[in-house]
Amino acid sequence: MSSVRSLNLFAPNSLPMVQPGDDLSGLVADALRREDLSLQDGDVLVVAQKIVSKSEGRLVRLADVRPTDRALDLAGKVNKDPRLVQLILDESNEVVRFRKDVLIVEHRLGFVMANAGIDMSNVLQEDSDDTALLLPLDPDRSARNLRRGLGEAFGVDVGVVINDSHGRAWRNGTVGVAIGVAGIASLWDLRGAPDMFGRHLQSTEVGTADELAAAGSLLMGQSSEATPVVVIRGFSWRPQEDATAHGLVRARQYDLFR
Amino acid sequence: MSSVRSLNLFAPNSLPMVQPGDDLSGLVADALRREDLSLQDGDVLVVAQKIVSKSEGRLVRLADVRPTDRALDLAGKVNKDPRLVQLILDESNEVVRFRKDVLIVEHRLGFVMANAGIDMSNVLQEDSDDTALLLPLDPDRSARNLRRGLGEAFGVDVGVVINDSHGRAWRNGTVGVAIGVAGIASLWDLRGAPDMFGRHLQSTEVGTADELAAAGSLLMGQSSEATPVVVIRGFSWRPQEDATAHGLVRARQYDLFR
Repeated sequence: MSSVRSLNLFAPNSLPMVQPGDDLSGLVADALRREDLSLQDGDVLVVAQKIVSKSEGRLVRLADVRPTDRALDLAGKVNKDPRLVQLILDESNEVVRFRKDVLIVEHRLGFVMANAGIDMSNVLQEDSDDTALLLPLDPDRSARNLRRGLGEAFGVDVGVVINDSHGRAWRNGTVGVAIGVAGIASLWDLRGAPDMFGRHLQSTEVGTADELAAAGSLLMGQSSEATPVVVIRGFSWRPQEDATAHGLVRARQYDLFR
Repeated sequence: MSSVRSLNLFAPNSLPMVQPGDDLSGLVADALRREDLSLQDGDVLVVAQKIVSKSEGRLVRLADVRPTDRALDLAGKVNKDPRLVQLILDESNEVVRFRKDVLIVEHRLGFVMANAGIDMSNVLQEDSDDTALLLPLDPDRSARNLRRGLGEAFGVDVGVVINDSHGRAWRNGTVGVAIGVAGIASLWDLRGAPDMFGRHLQSTEVGTADELAAAGSLLMGQSSEATPVVVIRGFSWRPQEDATAHGLVRARQYDLFR
């Protein structure tokens, strides 16, 4: 298969349950080594938001949340716990759409998503009904920390994508998307590049980090808790030292679907 | 790496330029064999819409299109060739949004997308400015044909996803999505499945075919013409004989973003 283009994705399966305060890079490096795996230059690690948030202690006990009148009112309309709705509002710039069982917001990071990405399942071994997990404060910074920690552990230069599962407009089903990146351009701008016949492509800006996030999600499978780290090997990506996931957010003035 | 979960993606690179009337299954099988590759039970083939459409002769010369008054009017507003706009309208159920340089429609297949998926680049070696490529008439049928043809060629049972690159609401960049499937469930419904702690997940219907389409798109890279077929090996998918991509289309009454 020498001339064949190929990608390999693999996932360590011995990562322990992540706890607040854990050194996530160290846990991932240990899990890889325990399974006789290592990282190579050019690998991209896709890491589930859930374990990043947990390691950063982004847990809130619902019992500690006091809902405002606004949250109480909205909670009735969307059929959710008012304390959860309060957390969602606290994490959001604005409510984009709501109806029974659905609450779509613009997260303070700019992402339009359901429930501000707050997760109530698989959060803790105990009291999971009572504990909410928020997104990392700054997922790009989280990604940079992982990039530095894992790069040092294996002496290599890797890209990192932190992924989450988002619903979409128009299409059913969630897909993995990037909420944080490090080292790797989140968008691949082909505008102006000539196609095979020298004709210039009109508009082909590819959401590379989102496609990596989706590919990682395939291997994470139904529980990103069980397989929360995926290594993608063989992908030709564009290094970008100051990469962020912000470029994936469509600016409001260009968004026809707010 | 015996206990490691892994996925392998590979792409034959000797596929000839596809022409109208070509037997696409035969071309793909020949390319794989030429490169000493074969298919195995459980492989998923991701095939670019462009070569499917070309093999099915879905080409229209713009010179043969006579725009209606409606197309002429809309073309002025979106700054596109009125003949192209006519083709877009002919392929669509309705216009969803438009403004200068942007025309988003509900395709007759139900997908909400820009320009009804009509492609003007990389279409033909000559006259590419003058020829448009429409989506396949029935991409699920196209996928079934590929599944049957390739299954017979290698004596195996494979899944097929036909992918295209779509823009999204809220996020910049295109990503690969499924417009046709065969043999493989397009959605993986985890609703009601217990999570690791026995707690029931509230709503986790995964757009599996879209994630496969995005993963394939990573390897197709900037030109699905050069690498239009990707084999995904090692993914555990749900066989579904009567699978279609229709399930990926959110029914209008449930779509808050029309």
